[in-house]
Amino acid sequence: MRQKKFILPDSEIPKAWFNIQAIMPNKPMPILHPGTRQALKPQDLYPIFCEECANQELDQTNEWIPIPEEVREQYAAYRCTPLVRAYELEEALGTPAHIYFKNESVSPAGSHKLNSALAQAYFAKKQGITNITTETGAGQWGGALSYAAKKFGLECAVYMVKASYNQKPYRRSIMQTFGAAITPSPSMSTRAGKDIITVNPNDQGSLGCAISEAIELAVSTPNCKYTLGSVLNHVCLHQTVIGLEAEKQMALAGEYPDIVIACFGGGSNFSGIAYPFMRHTILEGKKTRYIAAEPKSCPKLTRGKFEYDFGDEAGLTPLLPMFTIGHTFKPATIHAGGLRYHGAGIIMSQLMKDGYMEAKDYDQTDTFKAGVLFARTEGIIPAPESCHAIACAIEEALKCKETGEKKTILFNLSGHGFVDMSAYDQYFSGEMVNYSPSEEELAKYIASADALNK
Amino acid sequence: MRQKKFILPDSEIPKAWFNIQAIMPNKPMPILHPGTRQALKPQDLYPIFCEECANQELDQTNEWIPIPEEVREQYAAYRCTPLVRAYELEEALGTPAHIYFKNESVSPAGSHKLNSALAQAYFAKKQGITNITTETGAGQWGGALSYAAKKFGLECAVYMVKASYNQKPYRRSIMQTFGAAITPSPSMSTRAGKDIITVNPNDQGSLGCAISEAIELAVSTPNCKYTLGSVLNHVCLHQTVIGLEAEKQMALAGEYPDIVIACFGGGSNFSGIAYPFMRHTILEGKKTRYIAAEPKSCPKLTRGKFEYDFGDEAGLTPLLPMFTIGHTFKPATIHAGGLRYHGAGIIMSQLMKDGYMEAKDYDQTDTFKAGVLFARTEGIIPAPESCHAIACAIEEALKCKETGEKKTILFNLSGHGFVDMSAYDQYFSGEMVNYSPSEEELAKYIASADALNK
Repeated sequence: MRQKKFILPDSEIPKAWFNIQAIMPNKPMPILHPGTRQALKPQDLYPIFCEECANQELDQTNEWIPIPEEVREQYAAYRCTPLVRAYELEEALGTPAHIYFKNESVSPAGSHKLNSALAQAYFAKKQGITNITTETGAGQWGGALSYAAKKFGLECAVYMVKASYNQKPYRRSIMQTFGAAITPSPSMSTRAGKDIITVNPNDQGSLGCAISEAIELAVSTPNCKYTLGSVLNHVCLHQTVIGLEAEKQMALAGEYPDIVIACFGGGSNFSGIAYPFMRHTILEGKKTRYIAAEPKSCPKLTRGKFEYDFGDEAGLTPLLPMFTIGHTFKPATIHAGGLRYHGAGIIMSQLMKDGYMEAKDYDQTDTFKAGVLFARTEGIIPAPESCHAIACAIEEALKCKETGEKKTILFNLSGHGFVDMSAYDQYFSGEMVNYSPSEEELAKYIASADALNK
Repeated sequence: MRQKKFILPDSEIPKAWFNIQAIMPNKPMPILHPGTRQALKPQDLYPIFCEECANQELDQTNEWIPIPEEVREQYAAYRCTPLVRAYELEEALGTPAHIYFKNESVSPAGSHKLNSALAQAYFAKKQGITNITTETGAGQWGGALSYAAKKFGLECAVYMVKASYNQKPYRRSIMQTFGAAITPSPSMSTRAGKDIITVNPNDQGSLGCAISEAIELAVSTPNCKYTLGSVLNHVCLHQTVIGLEAEKQMALAGEYPDIVIACFGGGSNFSGIAYPFMRHTILEGKKTRYIAAEPKSCPKLTRGKFEYDFGDEAGLTPLLPMFTIGHTFKPATIHAGGLRYHGAGIIMSQLMKDGYMEAKDYDQTDTFKAGVLFARTEGIIPAPESCHAIACAIEEALKCKETGEKKTILFNLSGHGFVDMSAYDQYFSGEMVNYSPSEEELAKYIASADALNK
């Protein structure tokens, strides 16, 4: 019988995260204080993030950061995740390419997000923190953090965008089942929330406002820290367990990827699967292509501009050197909520600038078409975000069919779609629409970033 | 680091199913034609089921039935499933017991049901069948069959109880994503459905009616066969891959179960985990307890009677010798839809009668309490059905805490609860109610079976 899955025992769970910053030919440009324009030091981040995460964020020296045994022990609930050969997708496409996917959907929270949530919760606990907080839109990150907090005995408060709170009751219930306190945002629990509600009692919230509320809670509450699920360097660092395992598993399969693909929101799952392979490209000149698959509705890498911009809509964060379509950009409400972010993490932005990676953007309906084919061949109903990676993998596999090339394609299946079935309903009903900002519209939003670079 | 998961490579997927009928000290009593009261022969089942399944149903001779390579290849999408040591549940309980669970929730359909769906679809395909049909209430079986049909290139028609069709849109979407045709039942597509709709256009359906519609479609359509997800011997046979794997995995852990636990609807996941261990009890006298965990609202094993009864509400099936609370029993609409069945499979009924297994029943709220503790410790949100097994495992582990006994407890986690989050919502809201039929009520329903045994 052909081998379908390549699995590793608990003992092979990585013992260190890979910190790509240490080996980048061009390091990311510094993160700047928005007022003074001075480069931030870890200490500047201590009021908001726990110290270990702040230190990791700006570590450009240590190539390997040890994973604490307590975190590895929690990883063992779902890691090592399987690497799977997509034989039946290959057969359906009639491609000579070999397609593999790393299945991160098997985590308790249903996505890769837990890889960083567990690390962040552990480092907070170790520092004596008792409460952690965050915001969530689609709910994937909120669910992961809720679980991670419970595992390390922390209280967890999640500000959930009010529109999602009402529209995605399943995500809310998952967080509640894991024991978190969920507050619809805007709320009356913070100054930021009150300011909005008093003007418009029916405001349905935004990620920008939820971030503001979570940060306000963190800085105004003793022993409370803020956490984030993507974009930041330390988050991407934690995700490298994905690629480190995949590297070993590809070796078990006797192959090495010609192309590595992941969907792209802020970059957490992309960096997770890509960095460990990119290490060989940077250090040994391995010829692998790394493709970020993003939605046409939020095309930061394909149509954005590399410059300093705020990380949040409200302009409260430090200035980040990144590919951006402007922090004021209002992405259409596509189902892949995790990809609705205006910028790319600063490491990936630098790697993109230096030609180490490429990007492709996809219409929503095309990603669901790909997701349905994947479900019917490989059996896993993918999250709307993951459908982007699948669409890209299929596109590359079909190119191989044309050219007859037998390339090895690896993509990251970041999460499952069991709580996104209403999106599939809309796809099947034929009512799903696509959205792509016009040149004028995009220029207007990018101008909000340009203004910060004068 | 302590070993959390015990995994097996694809090559260890079992090569044969274990047919407990061949070694039972007392074979199950015959299945009878309701009119003639003659024992059924396989040929009598051919009009409804595919021939291989009909033969397996009545096979009391062959202890091992080879698993076709084509089925093993499909099993490899998710099998071997992990065996997990529930360290953190143990710690939360403070028990000296060792608790293990077999995680069947990792299958594409989210439950163990796929183990038989793939086998049934394969045997249908091999016989030249082009269409298969079934009914579904909660939707677990319908989802599994939809996927299995797609994998073997069969058309699949599912009759879904109308109330579920409207209340469980996620389950419906999952079947649709896998490519099945879903018809709310009662429908105008069959005589049985028409008869109901013409009398009451707003009838919300029942499992009994959906079964009638599916069977009518099967017998009136060329090249179409009916399939069932539980109760029957061949279904339970296919499920033995669960226990066969678990046996090897327990050996990897250096343990052997003192207690094996599964939730109980018709018996498919119970038999799957229990039979392979029970083989050693029957053949070698191994002292293992086997506990079926059922809902107090549908207590066929704890309060039922062993006698001949119909398998369906409408009384269209052959007569089955089983523990039953009467085929006319109307179970309360608990969230564990998969456990709302009036009878136990005939093999298990005989084993129960002969003292090889025992049963416990649980209130709905107690099962959710157990499920939430499991989610918060082991990270997996369990299906409402699986919560019953967890409640039983916790109860046994707490007994060990009292006595100081270090027993080894193994339970089957039959499925995840990602599409059952509304049930958790209800639990957290405090609005969940319990239901247990009174003695009088139960006696009335059992009388419907008694009448067939005179």
